[in-house]
Amino acid sequence: MPDLPRVVVTESLAAEPMAWLRQHADVVESSPDRVKEDLAGARGLVVRTYTTVNADLLDGGPDLNVVGRAGVALDNVDIGACRARGVEVVHTPGANSDAVAEFVFALIFDAIRPRVMLDKPLELGAWSSLRTELVASRQIAGSTIGIWGMGRIGTRIARIGTAFGATVLFHDIQEITDDWRNGGTPVSREELLERSDIVTLNMDEREKNRALVNADAFGRMRSDVVFVNCARGMVIDPVACAEFFVNHPGAIALLDVHDPEPFTATYPLLDINNVKLLPHIGAATRPAKINMSWVVRDVLRVIEGETPEHPAPLA
Amino acid sequence: MPDLPRVVVTESLAAEPMAWLRQHADVVESSPDRVKEDLAGARGLVVRTYTTVNADLLDGGPDLNVVGRAGVALDNVDIGACRARGVEVVHTPGANSDAVAEFVFALIFDAIRPRVMLDKPLELGAWSSLRTELVASRQIAGSTIGIWGMGRIGTRIARIGTAFGATVLFHDIQEITDDWRNGGTPVSREELLERSDIVTLNMDEREKNRALVNADAFGRMRSDVVFVNCARGMVIDPVACAEFFVNHPGAIALLDVHDPEPFTATYPLLDINNVKLLPHIGAATRPAKINMSWVVRDVLRVIEGETPEHPAPLA
Repeated sequence: MPDLPRVVVTESLAAEPMAWLRQHADVVESSPDRVKEDLAGARGLVVRTYTTVNADLLDGGPDLNVVGRAGVALDNVDIGACRARGVEVVHTPGANSDAVAEFVFALIFDAIRPRVMLDKPLELGAWSSLRTELVASRQIAGSTIGIWGMGRIGTRIARIGTAFGATVLFHDIQEITDDWRNGGTPVSREELLERSDIVTLNMDEREKNRALVNADAFGRMRSDVVFVNCARGMVIDPVACAEFFVNHPGAIALLDVHDPEPFTATYPLLDINNVKLLPHIGAATRPAKINMSWVVRDVLRVIEGETPEHPAPLA
Repeated sequence: MPDLPRVVVTESLAAEPMAWLRQHADVVESSPDRVKEDLAGARGLVVRTYTTVNADLLDGGPDLNVVGRAGVALDNVDIGACRARGVEVVHTPGANSDAVAEFVFALIFDAIRPRVMLDKPLELGAWSSLRTELVASRQIAGSTIGIWGMGRIGTRIARIGTAFGATVLFHDIQEITDDWRNGGTPVSREELLERSDIVTLNMDEREKNRALVNADAFGRMRSDVVFVNCARGMVIDPVACAEFFVNHPGAIALLDVHDPEPFTATYPLLDINNVKLLPHIGAATRPAKINMSWVVRDVLRVIEGETPEHPAPLA
């Protein structure tokens, strides 16, 4: 199909957007490892989480017009290097916000609501003992949830937490207007950490946020805090985090994101009873994947000289 | 302590209300099995779930003024038999509504959000395959939640479901006024069952509700329904339920309540892959137990000739 522009796809996309792309482009299915050699002649590149787009990679694609990131975070794309070569970057803000906000609550329930599935009958004595063992020490209702980072995901968590009957606090470097607060109250970083029964990180991956959650931050948290990170691994100082949870066995961490990913045998957060590690699946829902995969529409828009709906923010 | 009225307690209460009761009464700690012999001379009886209060039991307590049920449901208390003997019945409506509403969402996440906790590092290939395996096919956002029974718990579920971005339908035999709908839309039983991705039972244990969820009801449900019962086991026809889930492997049931409890080896819902059985822990939180255990205040009120705050409804 000589008339169709070549578009390289390095990670899996949802079926319907992929089928749509095949109708509008000469699609080359590549992988994060061999993408550079596949870029020759390509006008578009579509990536997700594990393809690093930097100056070196771009050298392999002199005809590139656009890099599409199926997802919101752009930490794997060097936006400056792209724009220096006249390559536009597009992404899908909001595509996975519901998926991640829901996952935060799934993880909170894993922390606070013990439960078992039975596969056989129990005598009354065993049944009653089990029920006594499984009493949860707390509820979301009546708890204080602290949301650090009040963007698209944080505001959803505020709305849901308020509906559950929690007191919702948030901290953000930007002023959050009333119509985005969803029942949350703005507080300082210090007050958020000191008052919250549940702390959830929802800031973005800008370089300034690296190790933002450091020893000082952990030192302010409650000794029985439920601590959730579904944002980015890089926002936590992993050594300070490990030290806090080793020293506070009544606290619990649920970490879906890591730095690096996958984490390796030297990861300081391995092998700590009250630190639960998950494989970065906060956004892993079919609806979110479909939403993200439609980044292909913006990729085609750029190739065809139109204005994309969701260009990356200025670096 | 001859001046203090005798109160028999058959199941465990939270510490603070129990300590308060000891200051105001001569407390006899009994059990569901031997309560009748302990009732002689007692003016009050405090029970939870597994003590059956009927005419026979009441014969053992000629001096009884009041039965207190720590909890809302009164299926284990024969209110008519009590009142026929001049024994008041008090309970704690609302004490566990937050606990149960939260548990419904914990179970929904168990059904729709697969997740694993990692205890060792993975190579990139295994990491990526695992992430692909764990993609959830659905979200609460965008789903339709059908709430059958729009009482204290149902209205909370409506509020939370709306905050998650679900479409909320409900069905109740009573007219539910606007200020209790929390974003939910009233529909017929048939429409609720046919349209809902997630069906949650939240009706009460009145005798008319026995086997209300019968073969006709299951026959209307979607083949991939998420079906949650945190209400009472008796509202389901267990044979019809078993048949539905055996025949619809894409559907999933999460049943926290059973008839009888504990269920026995002949329970029709045992040994079905997509039917998950839990040991009636929807209300099992410390805050709920504390709220429920304060039924002792109303028990003392009745003994002292005062009007209780929460008498049982007329039978």
